[in-house]
Formats: sequence, structure tokens, C-alpha cells
Amino acid sequence: MHVLTVCYAQPDDPAAFDAYYNATHVPLAQKIPGLRSFTWRHCASLDGSTLPYYLLAELAFDSQEALMAGLGSPEGGAAVGDVANFTTQPPLMFIAHD
Amino acid sequence: MHVLTVCYAQPDDPAAFDAYYNATHVPLAQKIPGLRSFTWRHCASLDGSTLPYYLLAELAFDSQEALMAGLGSPEGGAAVGDVANFTTQPPLMFIAHD
Repeated sequence: MHVLTVCYAQPDDPAAFDAYYNATHVPLAQKIPGLRSFTWRHCASLDGSTLPYYLLAELAFDSQEALMAGLGSPEGGAAVGDVANFTTQPPLMFIAHD
Repeated sequence: MHVLTVCYAQPDDPAAFDAYYNATHVPLAQKIPGLRSFTWRHCASLDGSTLPYYLLAELAFDSQEALMAGLGSPEGGAAVGDVANFTTQPPLMFIAHD
């Protein structure tokens, strides 16, 4: 499994971030071809310290080729292009692979 | 689901890190009470840039209470205490929750 991992920084307005993410971004991301699973979870500190990330999204694909093809598709482009609509700083994105 | 997420920095010696992680740390972590699933994946850049993380580990528990109880158990303490045996800088750790 190859997991596109997206680490979103703390937003200025968490409620607005969540509303846009759930209503608009999730449906766009779910259209990416080859997507096997998609989870997103909020981040909470273990010790009360400030975390660098607010939300962690994980989009799983069967292979690196499938992941790159999905990102390079029109639907992938639409999802990636939408990120700037609800973030002011680009998220950290990487592939986590077995 | 509450997922203890551990982001390990790039080690000086990746092969030594992997050898210790697989042979010693994974068996210790798998003994933590309440652990529902445990995955660990290496991180790869999408664009060739240097990433802050080398390995992402995810330990899932049914609830925050189960997670904290697992970490606070003797087995949890042994696993957490082992981290210093194969890292020179402490990993970023947080809870990712639905």
C-alpha cells in the first residue's frame, strides 16, 4: 500500500477549515481514480504542547504508480488545486509506503 | 479510533534504524495493551525534496482512554523507553482521532 499523507497546519479558523474540508474537499478527493481508502483525523497533543499539524489525511493506493496516476488525473488535479482554497500554508505531503 | 502517530526523523544510519526497529522495537510495541492495529511505513518524497520524517508509525486504540492506559502500562513504558535506543532526536508524537 502507498499512502499519500497530507499534514495540514493549524488553520486560523478551524471551524471554517472543517466546514470547507468536509463539504467540498472530501468529495473532490474521493473522486481520485485508484483511491482505495481515504481517512482524515484531527491531531491532538499528548501533553498539551502545540502541534505543527491540525489534520492528517491519508489516501491509500495500490502502488506508487497508481498514486501518481491518480494525482496526475483531472480529478487529482482538481483535488490538489482545491487545497489553496482552504489553507494559507501548503500542507506537508509525502508517500508512506510498506 | 484514536491513533498514536509517531513521526521519526531521518536517522543517521537508516539500515541500523530499520534493523533495530523491526527486530526489537516492533515486538515491544505490539505488547502494548489495547492496541488494535499497528502499521509503520517509510516516507518518500513526491518531488525529490528532503522530508522531515523517515518512518511513520500508527498505533490504533479504541479510545483516548485506551490509548493513554496502553501508554501508561508497563509494556507501554517499555516501548516508549526503547525509542531512545534507536533515535538521536525524539520523534514527533500525537493522537490522530476521528
